[in-house]
Amino acid sequence: MVKIFAYLRMSLGTLYLIPVPLSETADEATFTLFAKQIMHQVDEYIVENAKTARKFLKLAGTPIPQNKLILHDYGKHARQQADKSFFFKGLLAGKDVGLMSEAGCPGIADPGAEIVAEAHRLGVKVVPLVGPSSIVLALMASGFNGQSFAFQGYLPIDKAARNKKLKQLETTVRSLEQTQIFIETPFRNNQLLEEIIRACSPNTRLCIACNLTAPNEWIASMPLSKWKGRDIDLHKKPAIFLMGS
Amino acid sequence: MVKIFAYLRMSLGTLYLIPVPLSETADEATFTLFAKQIMHQVDEYIVENAKTARKFLKLAGTPIPQNKLILHDYGKHARQQADKSFFFKGLLAGKDVGLMSEAGCPGIADPGAEIVAEAHRLGVKVVPLVGPSSIVLALMASGFNGQSFAFQGYLPIDKAARNKKLKQLETTVRSLEQTQIFIETPFRNNQLLEEIIRACSPNTRLCIACNLTAPNEWIASMPLSKWKGRDIDLHKKPAIFLMGS
Repeated sequence: MVKIFAYLRMSLGTLYLIPVPLSETADEATFTLFAKQIMHQVDEYIVENAKTARKFLKLAGTPIPQNKLILHDYGKHARQQADKSFFFKGLLAGKDVGLMSEAGCPGIADPGAEIVAEAHRLGVKVVPLVGPSSIVLALMASGFNGQSFAFQGYLPIDKAARNKKLKQLETTVRSLEQTQIFIETPFRNNQLLEEIIRACSPNTRLCIACNLTAPNEWIASMPLSKWKGRDIDLHKKPAIFLMGS
Repeated sequence: MVKIFAYLRMSLGTLYLIPVPLSETADEATFTLFAKQIMHQVDEYIVENAKTARKFLKLAGTPIPQNKLILHDYGKHARQQADKSFFFKGLLAGKDVGLMSEAGCPGIADPGAEIVAEAHRLGVKVVPLVGPSSIVLALMASGFNGQSFAFQGYLPIDKAARNKKLKQLETTVRSLEQTQIFIETPFRNNQLLEEIIRACSPNTRLCIACNLTAPNEWIASMPLSKWKGRDIDLHKKPAIFLMGS
């Protein structure tokens, strides 16, 4: 039985998890040589957004013509379909396949984890490639505790619930010395900053990392007392928020 | 006042946060072109381990001769010295400086965060570079929830405390759907795996990512019921553990 299993596994393709740029022109700051080599060879992808995936493959200099690329759309609408087995046909037939999200690392703060989980169930080998994660870049640059941290995703939209959550996060920062990382829909960034300043102690430290890897990247890390009253515009800009002690 | 501040800041150097390989020969899977360009220009570094830093700079192909490199040791002993101001002399004089940990991303699961925090206090610009983080690679590859996760660092060494912690982590995985990520000193990896199997429910999912980015990289993600009884040797191998639902 063991031998048969090993044989079956050997005949399957590998699922490469391919991080993509966080900003339009950041190819030099994004792709490792190995990631490029994979993208130059693999012609089948499971993607969150087919249009951006094509752009990233071009940016990575793939020699495979666009009309030869097989892209399985794993965006919002496609995900609702019950049968995802067609995503795995290539892999089960022994072809290597890439997984790409719309920005950064597939499976982190995006829905790609479902695809990876299914790959494990099917016995498909999963290989994650090095690339940009806004969470990691922001955490590195914050100067906050990187030995214990939590990514919370989006905070609640409801004002009262959000206020309560911000206070909870502040308590956790203090009691566990655990850095708290969260995001917001870009058009609500300014509002979130105001709410953090209102809800939390002036001594609590906040880091905001904006436009990561772009030419206009901007990172600041300081106590809330210093954030207060500054003329900062985060409206519609990709930003990530970190609370630390 | 504002103008004077801006002038001062402009005259300072930039602190580049430079991720380094997780495994001996993983340069092609580690460095982006931009990271290499920085490492080819910058001759001053704050490093966790001078010996490995020299090796990484060579691996990245720096044209700067080894005897021209200025390395400030930020290892265990150097950290205990009270005066860290000499680390920042170059930056304050307008020189760009790199920060490197012993493996992966500086500031994450290593002591580099203190240096970054001090840089912010001094008004030094901090630029994080894309590179390998074992936490992110393992999370991507786990198939677990990447929209909410926590890195816990090392678990307690004491058996009773560790057992309690493992049960707490399992409860958090269930109640918050928050993936829990933790590490162990490599010579205790096998023991930790046994303890997880003993302490937690057979339905709880465990991912172990071992030797990430090395030729013998090995990642498995399955319920504890399937981990039980397997002949797995993690002794003295770099590994990262993830618990998911």
